[in-house]
Amino acid sequence: MKEPLFEVAQLAHVEIYTPNPDGTLWFFKELLGMEETQREGQSVYLRAYEDFYHHTLKVTEARQPGLGHVAWRTTSPQALERRVEVLKATGLGRGWIDGDHGHGPAFQFVTPDGHPMELLWEVEYWQAPPELATRLLNRPQKRPLRGVPVRRLDHVNLLTRNVTANKEFMMDALGFRLREHIVLDSGAEVGAWMSVSPLVHEVAFMGDRLGVGGRLHHICYWYGVPQHLSDIAEVFSEYGVAIEAGPGKHGISQAYFMYVLEPGGNRVELFGDAGYLIFDPDWKPVTWKEADLDKGIIWYGSPLPAEYFIYGTPDPRQEAAD
Amino acid sequence: MKEPLFEVAQLAHVEIYTPNPDGTLWFFKELLGMEETQREGQSVYLRAYEDFYHHTLKVTEARQPGLGHVAWRTTSPQALERRVEVLKATGLGRGWIDGDHGHGPAFQFVTPDGHPMELLWEVEYWQAPPELATRLLNRPQKRPLRGVPVRRLDHVNLLTRNVTANKEFMMDALGFRLREHIVLDSGAEVGAWMSVSPLVHEVAFMGDRLGVGGRLHHICYWYGVPQHLSDIAEVFSEYGVAIEAGPGKHGISQAYFMYVLEPGGNRVELFGDAGYLIFDPDWKPVTWKEADLDKGIIWYGSPLPAEYFIYGTPDPRQEAAD
Amino acid sequence: MKEPLFEVAQLAHVEIYTPNPDGTLWFFKELLGMEETQREGQSVYLRAYEDFYHHTLKVTEARQPGLGHVAWRTTSPQALERRVEVLKATGLGRGWIDGDHGHGPAFQFVTPDGHPMELLWEVEYWQAPPELATRLLNRPQKRPLRGVPVRRLDHVNLLTRNVTANKEFMMDALGFRLREHIVLDSGAEVGAWMSVSPLVHEVAFMGDRLGVGGRLHHICYWYGVPQHLSDIAEVFSEYGVAIEAGPGKHGISQAYFMYVLEPGGNRVELFGDAGYLIFDPDWKPVTWKEADLDKGIIWYGSPLPAEYFIYGTPDPRQEAAD
Amino acid sequence: MKEPLFEVAQLAHVEIYTPNPDGTLWFFKELLGMEETQREGQSVYLRAYEDFYHHTLKVTEARQPGLGHVAWRTTSPQALERRVEVLKATGLGRGWIDGDHGHGPAFQFVTPDGHPMELLWEVEYWQAPPELATRLLNRPQKRPLRGVPVRRLDHVNLLTRNVTANKEFMMDALGFRLREHIVLDSGAEVGAWMSVSPLVHEVAFMGDRLGVGGRLHHICYWYGVPQHLSDIAEVFSEYGVAIEAGPGKHGISQAYFMYVLEPGGNRVELFGDAGYLIFDPDWKPVTWKEADLDKGIIWYGSPLPAEYFIYGTPDPRQEAAD
Repeated sequence: MKEPLFEVAQLAHVEIYTPNPDGTLWFFKELLGMEETQREGQSVYLRAYEDFYHHTLKVTEARQPGLGHVAWRTTSPQALERRVEVLKATGLGRGWIDGDHGHGPAFQFVTPDGHPMELLWEVEYWQAPPELATRLLNRPQKRPLRGVPVRRLDHVNLLTRNVTANKEFMMDALGFRLREHIVLDSGAEVGAWMSVSPLVHEVAFMGDRLGVGGRLHHICYWYGVPQHLSDIAEVFSEYGVAIEAGPGKHGISQAYFMYVLEPGGNRVELFGDAGYLIFDPDWKPVTWKEADLDKGIIWYGSPLPAEYFIYGTPDPRQEAAD
Repeated sequence: MKEPLFEVAQLAHVEIYTPNPDGTLWFFKELLGMEETQREGQSVYLRAYEDFYHHTLKVTEARQPGLGHVAWRTTSPQALERRVEVLKATGLGRGWIDGDHGHGPAFQFVTPDGHPMELLWEVEYWQAPPELATRLLNRPQKRPLRGVPVRRLDHVNLLTRNVTANKEFMMDALGFRLREHIVLDSGAEVGAWMSVSPLVHEVAFMGDRLGVGGRLHHICYWYGVPQHLSDIAEVFSEYGVAIEAGPGKHGISQAYFMYVLEPGGNRVELFGDAGYLIFDPDWKPVTWKEADLDKGIIWYGSPLPAEYFIYGTPDPRQEAAD
Repeated sequence: MKEPLFEVAQLAHVEIYTPNPDGTLWFFKELLGMEETQREGQSVYLRAYEDFYHHTLKVTEARQPGLGHVAWRTTSPQALERRVEVLKATGLGRGWIDGDHGHGPAFQFVTPDGHPMELLWEVEYWQAPPELATRLLNRPQKRPLRGVPVRRLDHVNLLTRNVTANKEFMMDALGFRLREHIVLDSGAEVGAWMSVSPLVHEVAFMGDRLGVGGRLHHICYWYGVPQHLSDIAEVFSEYGVAIEAGPGKHGISQAYFMYVLEPGGNRVELFGDAGYLIFDPDWKPVTWKEADLDKGIIWYGSPLPAEYFIYGTPDPRQEAAD
Repeated sequence: MKEPLFEVAQLAHVEIYTPNPDGTLWFFKELLGMEETQREGQSVYLRAYEDFYHHTLKVTEARQPGLGHVAWRTTSPQALERRVEVLKATGLGRGWIDGDHGHGPAFQFVTPDGHPMELLWEVEYWQAPPELATRLLNRPQKRPLRGVPVRRLDHVNLLTRNVTANKEFMMDALGFRLREHIVLDSGAEVGAWMSVSPLVHEVAFMGDRLGVGGRLHHICYWYGVPQHLSDIAEVFSEYGVAIEAGPGKHGISQAYFMYVLEPGGNRVELFGDAGYLIFDPDWKPVTWKEADLDKGIIWYGSPLPAEYFIYGTPDPRQEAAD
């Protein structure tokens, strides 16, 4: 057996674009209870109350919603060097940047579909100011009193014109392991869920039906407590945020989910339980074929609306309409 | 930075001894909803409904309750070979066995305190009979209709006469990472929580106040859903199983916990939420000192009873009384 | 102010018809954890574990699913006499029966739409056999170990060709209080929720779009614990019971709901929280108009399927197809 | 059978005294999410987000914590007149007041133990300002974004030197029904839970071991959702509010409870589920004797601390120490 790679440790942060920064920040701060840790230029940096680093979300004003970039942290500085060499060899490397608020040097690259990504090692740990300091020593700050606070960044889901090619890039270059995927009767692979940890996925690719490159399907923050989906659903209904789907339970990943569009237009998933965790080092990917796909998409709950499978950001239909 | 080891993947199974096998099996099967997968000699093999392998619990009849052994699965066959060499060099290796129901060759060793352990690679995946087959392809069987079914094995907690020595053994020989520990004002380390995955611990050591070697404090099965602790607490109250402590929330590991004594006398923890997960590859262990220890032991809920810190299996006080 | 009537105390039991008694009993006993307390002729009597009387559900074999009858208990024997006089005066009285298993003399009547009902005072309290006796003195038996056990009968929802006439009958003859109703822009009242207790409803009437008389929309058993809807949804998905809608939250009554069709074809609601309770003795009915109706039907969760508003039992479309 | 009285409808509001009004208001507004609706003199009026009237809690500054008064609403104006006549005849009536913010004329009286109470009919319904208006028409305002918001006032628990005499007063003069009580082997009745609705209690009396008159044991606000006790427990631990007991489940009333002392010193219970409801019009009170009392007090969870059975407000031991 070929030994597995343990070179990438985790999803470090995500940057999203928003044409409505006030609305987007209200959503993440007042409803999801996130903390603002920095503001510079057109960007605001946020973290959930159990995120240990400087930020997990960078919100940048832009003409259209969409993905800024996805950043991964390696398991060591040595692993970073090794992975950069591999990335360079793929031809998808874009070069080093000095860093940003909250982290040191990062190597930029893109997926075959064009999603901007970064790989980095050095991070800044966030230090709570006195009024947010907690006696719970394994938590970086007090649980907030605002909204229904999310706990940590969980994963990112990307639309792509070629699921298989992008999946293989993440596996080959970075050591991601395929956990579950959808394979149609035609043999086409139209969805893939991958991880470097026992989580079923830190990243997923789904087919982009509009054929655009580099689009975002959703980012996901984690509650881990089923009731909190009901609580935040109440809040969304009270405060006029449209729930796209859920609460419900996916078969794939066993996630208890809810999807909403934040005021900037990006889809956000709230993850309401722990799904299941994969500790088996020799995991055989779960293949969902058409006959089982209904249960794979929805284990219980209502069917997803048609737009779930089409809409991503940016939305070329909206751009065309502008 | 020294690169981390990724050689041990997971806790594979635990064997416990029981002087009351009928009671113990009733507890795990009827109340916790576990499945019996094999029975031979004085042993019965069980698994929770989301455990993928042949078993995670081996219940063996014996004069006294206590720990049979703890088995770990490596990340590859090569890792198994490398770890065995290291274990042999520690002088704590005991040699290979051919295997057991559900797994192949295993290398036996003991902790410095004398807890029997095994390291293995080859495992047998459990195949559900037709009546238990599920359409949820990432689940090995239907959710049972009996009791309040636990989902998977989570961790084991061992009493030891020397926390530091046993901790260092697990770290040095097997690559466990220290996540949290308790250090008294005297400098004595009296508890250590360690893992090879984002779980805060697959194994913990706590000081054995009775000075015996190789004892079990508890094994833990996982629900991951807070309500299920209330549900199983109802069941325990209805069916005469004594709840020792909980529901409540530990600071250490952030586990929403409940402890009971199964009819054979071993302490069993039920884990009611996801605690928190550690994805940071450069995690600095959390040190709980005396001033913070009350919150470390109980973040919310009632104080633990005194016997929690003394009782383990076997109990030399009972043996003396026999 | 006219003083309110306090003559009817509660929904005592419901009888449903089923063409598939084995399937119906499996559903209520194995999945919903109900207890069988009697069997005679074509009928089986069941109760939930917190139902205090002999039964709350009578399942009777018949060619078509549907409503057998609905039984109400008065607040006193005197109230029974007074209400019978009033019922007789309406012309909808059908006369006394000696009783049935579990209760004494009952006065039979029908709603204007033809739903069979009974009014009674004398009931038999169920006594647990020793193996089901509990130390929880305010509970009639141990919480069962089967399935995800429901706690008590909650309400019944009836389809009718004339909501207003049936509502007024229940209010005038029996003292029900109108809690919420739906009034279309045309002025037509198409749904009414009524109660004699702080529950928002023990009975609801909704317009029968197929124009049949005396049909059942659903009966409802109560969990009161939101997680239990997720648990029973898992069970339904595992064991092949089709979930029609939910989990989700109605605006009307604030019920956290799920609807399924039991194997006999009758719709069953599971009520997952406490909704809200009305203690105000001068409650002004909540009127849902068309502009607000979407939120009234679904406060959060997915829209109800079209058949929810059409299907009831018996279903004349199926009868026609037979 | 003597017909039951239906003259008192509900607990309308409670007034508490606090020596620390800033702390008390911070507790109820910021942590429990209550709304301030009025402020006059030394009093502030508050309501939970599902309380329909002007207020359910009046917080009045005073030298010592304790009970201001308890107000009950009758089922009709006629019932108010009838009850006042009965109260006058008991010799415990104190006379009419014109009203207060939020309600009209009220008749003041005391229990035999000296707890001040009021009986009233006219109430003012609270109207949400535009920013708090909700589309959920059966809810008086939006669910707040502050803290873990309680939903409604539930009950009051009073200490008394003579449980039986006070219980009989509430039953005879006001029509309360005895639901559960504790009777020691000596025959002494040391606790009684009574209601005018299907709730197990709107008022309870427990023996006052310090022999003072008119003291408050606790007031209780309702969540109805078990997870919210864990959420507010997190908040209390983070923000330094001492949890006295819980989360745990009482046998008596089946309440899933937690008790804290608000910064003014009064005990507050948070009620985390729906307990059980009594619809039986001929309910036989549940008698808890010494042999069953452990399960009656705690069905599951840790034992209550000794002070739970002693401490009430005002606390004569503190007054003596001042």
